[in-house]
Amino acid sequence: MTDPSKRALCVALIGTGFMGKCHAMAWNNVATVYGLRRPRLKVLCDIDHYAALAHAASFGFERAATDWEAVVADPEVDIVSITTPNGLHRPMAEAALRAGKHVWLEKPMALTLEDADAMARLARSLPQQVTLLGYNYLRSPAFRAAQAMISRGDIGEPHAFRGVYDEDYSADPALPWSWRMTRAAGGLGALGDLGCHLVSQMLALMGPVSELTAMTRISVPERPSPDGPRNVENEDSAMALIRFASGAQGSFATSRVARGRKCRLQWEIHGTDGTILFDQENMNELWVHRAGEAGFTRHLSGPEQPEFAAFCPAAGHNFGFNEMKVVEAHDLLVAIEGGANAGPDFIEGLAIERIIHAMATSNGSPVALGGEA
Amino acid sequence: MTDPSKRALCVALIGTGFMGKCHAMAWNNVATVYGLRRPRLKVLCDIDHYAALAHAASFGFERAATDWEAVVADPEVDIVSITTPNGLHRPMAEAALRAGKHVWLEKPMALTLEDADAMARLARSLPQQVTLLGYNYLRSPAFRAAQAMISRGDIGEPHAFRGVYDEDYSADPALPWSWRMTRAAGGLGALGDLGCHLVSQMLALMGPVSELTAMTRISVPERPSPDGPRNVENEDSAMALIRFASGAQGSFATSRVARGRKCRLQWEIHGTDGTILFDQENMNELWVHRAGEAGFTRHLSGPEQPEFAAFCPAAGHNFGFNEMKVVEAHDLLVAIEGGANAGPDFIEGLAIERIIHAMATSNGSPVALGGEA
Amino acid sequence: MTDPSKRALCVALIGTGFMGKCHAMAWNNVATVYGLRRPRLKVLCDIDHYAALAHAASFGFERAATDWEAVVADPEVDIVSITTPNGLHRPMAEAALRAGKHVWLEKPMALTLEDADAMARLARSLPQQVTLLGYNYLRSPAFRAAQAMISRGDIGEPHAFRGVYDEDYSADPALPWSWRMTRAAGGLGALGDLGCHLVSQMLALMGPVSELTAMTRISVPERPSPDGPRNVENEDSAMALIRFASGAQGSFATSRVARGRKCRLQWEIHGTDGTILFDQENMNELWVHRAGEAGFTRHLSGPEQPEFAAFCPAAGHNFGFNEMKVVEAHDLLVAIEGGANAGPDFIEGLAIERIIHAMATSNGSPVALGGEA
Amino acid sequence: MTDPSKRALCVALIGTGFMGKCHAMAWNNVATVYGLRRPRLKVLCDIDHYAALAHAASFGFERAATDWEAVVADPEVDIVSITTPNGLHRPMAEAALRAGKHVWLEKPMALTLEDADAMARLARSLPQQVTLLGYNYLRSPAFRAAQAMISRGDIGEPHAFRGVYDEDYSADPALPWSWRMTRAAGGLGALGDLGCHLVSQMLALMGPVSELTAMTRISVPERPSPDGPRNVENEDSAMALIRFASGAQGSFATSRVARGRKCRLQWEIHGTDGTILFDQENMNELWVHRAGEAGFTRHLSGPEQPEFAAFCPAAGHNFGFNEMKVVEAHDLLVAIEGGANAGPDFIEGLAIERIIHAMATSNGSPVALGGEA
Repeated sequence: MTDPSKRALCVALIGTGFMGKCHAMAWNNVATVYGLRRPRLKVLCDIDHYAALAHAASFGFERAATDWEAVVADPEVDIVSITTPNGLHRPMAEAALRAGKHVWLEKPMALTLEDADAMARLARSLPQQVTLLGYNYLRSPAFRAAQAMISRGDIGEPHAFRGVYDEDYSADPALPWSWRMTRAAGGLGALGDLGCHLVSQMLALMGPVSELTAMTRISVPERPSPDGPRNVENEDSAMALIRFASGAQGSFATSRVARGRKCRLQWEIHGTDGTILFDQENMNELWVHRAGEAGFTRHLSGPEQPEFAAFCPAAGHNFGFNEMKVVEAHDLLVAIEGGANAGPDFIEGLAIERIIHAMATSNGSPVALGGEA
Repeated sequence: MTDPSKRALCVALIGTGFMGKCHAMAWNNVATVYGLRRPRLKVLCDIDHYAALAHAASFGFERAATDWEAVVADPEVDIVSITTPNGLHRPMAEAALRAGKHVWLEKPMALTLEDADAMARLARSLPQQVTLLGYNYLRSPAFRAAQAMISRGDIGEPHAFRGVYDEDYSADPALPWSWRMTRAAGGLGALGDLGCHLVSQMLALMGPVSELTAMTRISVPERPSPDGPRNVENEDSAMALIRFASGAQGSFATSRVARGRKCRLQWEIHGTDGTILFDQENMNELWVHRAGEAGFTRHLSGPEQPEFAAFCPAAGHNFGFNEMKVVEAHDLLVAIEGGANAGPDFIEGLAIERIIHAMATSNGSPVALGGEA
Repeated sequence: MTDPSKRALCVALIGTGFMGKCHAMAWNNVATVYGLRRPRLKVLCDIDHYAALAHAASFGFERAATDWEAVVADPEVDIVSITTPNGLHRPMAEAALRAGKHVWLEKPMALTLEDADAMARLARSLPQQVTLLGYNYLRSPAFRAAQAMISRGDIGEPHAFRGVYDEDYSADPALPWSWRMTRAAGGLGALGDLGCHLVSQMLALMGPVSELTAMTRISVPERPSPDGPRNVENEDSAMALIRFASGAQGSFATSRVARGRKCRLQWEIHGTDGTILFDQENMNELWVHRAGEAGFTRHLSGPEQPEFAAFCPAAGHNFGFNEMKVVEAHDLLVAIEGGANAGPDFIEGLAIERIIHAMATSNGSPVALGGEA
Repeated sequence: MTDPSKRALCVALIGTGFMGKCHAMAWNNVATVYGLRRPRLKVLCDIDHYAALAHAASFGFERAATDWEAVVADPEVDIVSITTPNGLHRPMAEAALRAGKHVWLEKPMALTLEDADAMARLARSLPQQVTLLGYNYLRSPAFRAAQAMISRGDIGEPHAFRGVYDEDYSADPALPWSWRMTRAAGGLGALGDLGCHLVSQMLALMGPVSELTAMTRISVPERPSPDGPRNVENEDSAMALIRFASGAQGSFATSRVARGRKCRLQWEIHGTDGTILFDQENMNELWVHRAGEAGFTRHLSGPEQPEFAAFCPAAGHNFGFNEMKVVEAHDLLVAIEGGANAGPDFIEGLAIERIIHAMATSNGSPVALGGEA
């Protein structure tokens, strides 16, 4: 399948935190899993010299670096994985694109809608280079099986969406203030961290949004800091009503202050002939009801789902969070090899950004979105 | 506990359908369960003479009747249970109140907000007579335990409500047209059948609503009838965003076209110190998380819940749907004996009607509610 | 359907505790639910004069009594409900049978296998009189639906049974010693309280047992009493392997010291074409998988189940524990009117007793049962 | 943490099927995940030359081989991963041990108890070389958290174990006959494939077994083959009662013909102060009840569990089946570096083999095990 005459693709990874390590695991195993030519893990970049060195050794990168501008300009590099704080997304992605690289960027795209718009415009002007945003929840076997069911018409015409994405990482009012809670440095709150994932799934399942009405709330308006209490500027939670271009309707909610919720990315879709339920906390299950059946049936992920089969031939052997990133790396490689881009690329990512920013500013009034996907 | 010098209360029941039988079961067992003086089951009324006679015999009523106006005027009757179609609620309830009776009326109050308002005004003018609306889902042991937890502050300050009430009884597009689907004879659709129950719980848990924005949808606009296809006039589903007087926010959805849902009256409340989840399809469970605990804990109903203890001393022995009506009959008797009225009475019921009618007419724009409970 | 020329059946109820009240609720509503001629609630008997009087009034019995021997001999009484401690089962049931009454007796039949054998022989000699044992868990809509599925062959040939019945009412070692923990006055332990229910379901689902091997355990050998620590003589838990006459195999376990379990009467049956799961703590659900389906489907009880339909026309409205007793009362009335006896009658009950006593004495060695049902 | 002066450990992997790929993924990421010096993936061996070559390239091994005897003798190799059919386990493992290698061997150890015994004796004679068996279900964060809870006494003294491991891969009677269904080439049936995993967990949680009684069953005695129907010789299912050296008791069942079960490795342990439940199909959850709590609490895996933390810092992000193998590779490296061997090594593995072989031959009679762990 792989053409031995072609040189291996070379990867640079920027960032060694939670998502940096997750990308590293994916780069190490994408070829193992899919039976591909192995990419070369060329350079690992972190502003912390020691972290870069130590992680380069254990992650299997050929060298370490601290200067991201040099890394993205390195002529040997084909692909740049960007897993740094959100404020760095735009400069890094733009520099990499301008240097001719393919870009794999963690979500959200940027701090502001203006930044995202600029990035999308640049990507559109460079159609030979692949951009892919790290909306990894789009990659699980169960999620893709749900997409396929809907596309096949298994539940008829979808007419209602109900989705939430809740966690509790900010629920404790004693949690100290951080720059992440400012508009300028952190951007949006729960909508940027969590809500954008739910939007990515909602668009993939229901199609474009034509209008929404939303409201947001800051549950803990002040948090302690060494300099005394400081204001939290971005939302702890948001709720919205959605009108889809298809005529379907939806409800949407996200919270970072939902006690006891850890990764509650959960939705249900009502169709004319059936209903599908999903919850990321049990990511190997879909619950499906079709007209005429007795109730909801648990579909446990298994090898009849293509994303699962690549990893394991036996049903019931749980697919894991980190493995979604391997699927994502594979999607990226497929697009680079000339296949379809599973997306979201930067243009599709902008649509997600428009929706979360509309939610952030609606304040109870309808906002027209134009129905773009 | 019972004063042997007082004569037993005498009951008239109008209607012998689903809810009529449910009232009859409650009237037969309220004294058995609570150790009270037994009410006398005086008269059972149905326009169908045969049904009235047959059911009077099996339900244990002393006599049968077909003329409701005579029944509500009968001087021997103390309490009138009304379980007839919604269009008859106002005339029957008003006649019974004017005849000096206590009134136990199934929900929703009436077809129109104007009717409900008139009924509430009449009830307010007759403070010696008890009115109680059949919002039976307020009576389950688990629901009352949830109320008690919130009142005690177990989950701190509630800041978010997420509620749905979905069924699928109208999901099949081949279901024939009926007068229930008209505004004039059926009133509201899913909001009147289902949504009002969820509103009753929401108000009991979260307090008054100050503003809402809603949208509705008719999924099956035309249904077959012997005279050809006819229009469906009332909503198949509705969704809303809620602002509570407390400052909390909420999302709300109801549907009668949600394939596979049978009695999915489900909500969750996020508080500053914990979260509570409930689903009527598993009505003997609450799921509770409190700050510091590992996750959600299943609270299976048991005799530490007063409503449960009256029926059974052993946990895990499921409390049933029909038993909620026995609790409701008990609530009514307590109020008649001079205790507090657990409600909703007609005045509180009007607040529920205002909310569902606001949802029916919002069409995406905010509606102020004034925050009344 | 009822013949007006026949006089109503007259009921005596002995015992006013947990199960006495449960029988009383059933007697009050069996006619309401099934549309039958109402039985007359003739006499309520309790050795405590005050309890008898007070409960007779609230339960709706015509008179109270304290002398059970007179009650069972009363020529006006047709049916005797016996809900007293196990040691009284044999004398009361035998006296009632000898007086020509139909007998409804709570389980287990008796303290010893000899007593049960004598009772079965007497019942066999009086074939005109109906005996029915209070194995109420056989009456739920979901359980009967499972029986029907197996009978219809929905899961093919059953080849494996896995069942448990666990509670935690004796888990606390500080629970005081009681006479119930002696062989002489309490009979068997967990097997007599809980295990016999599971056996009743196992036989109804799998047919007769030909051989078993079991072991028992006393987890708390001594318990506090006012006279100092005293020995617990009957088992806290038991486990068994079962060979069925059909060739199927089974595992069986019961415990009264299973922390956190409240009414965990749970089993699964593997058939050649499918699997069924049941758990009494969620008694309105069956989980069914049939060959070719994606996974297990939740069957929520609803009106397609005849036992459910009698109580409610709408699915998802939970059937309750106490309502199983109404079904049982109906089963009794059907048998008295000449229909089939749903059982277990005293002869079938003896088979249950033989199994639990074999489990109590096996001590790890196989015991042949002869395969009787 | 890694000593740069030491040369990297060199790995040979034999087998490229389901488990071969699983080992390959683990070898690629064990250093990435744990921040270790990366092992060198020296040689991949498969009797199929093409498979060896193709997989060596995608799995990242330096070279391919087809002659396993040469591979295990290769002086450059430190560790041999064996993932071949069970009949090859003994010759390969013994040759590798005799060549001075550390051995990582998939379960079960061997086809016969005699083989396992010989392997254990050899391993005992070579204490400098590490042996580790691929009981990967011992490695999940949730399983290890359960072990830690029990060790800490969170549920008091364990007194009852109830365990099953069911799948349905042989449920279809049309599944063709294979050599795996013979004693000579396939060894045990469900006990060897599945039951040994459950035994490995049972021993790790409950300690040694002193006695057991078991029975087995062949549900599909004949299966189609090109030469006509042939006999199935090893068990489709088995059930056992267990006495532990501690005095606790247990029930045990396994089946490869349980329709609808995919990886139902499920157990519960009753202790004097609490109960723990686990099910591998939802491997990121433990359900725990402790005396005094309201019910069972869902413990969703998260970074407070050390095995989880190595992979992800955020709770609710599901750990996957393949990641257990990374933990296992890490356990192996720790033991090679001189740390404790988490096991089971070949000596402990022999105890597992003794138990499953005792189950296979008990035929309803007690078998003494001597209580060895």
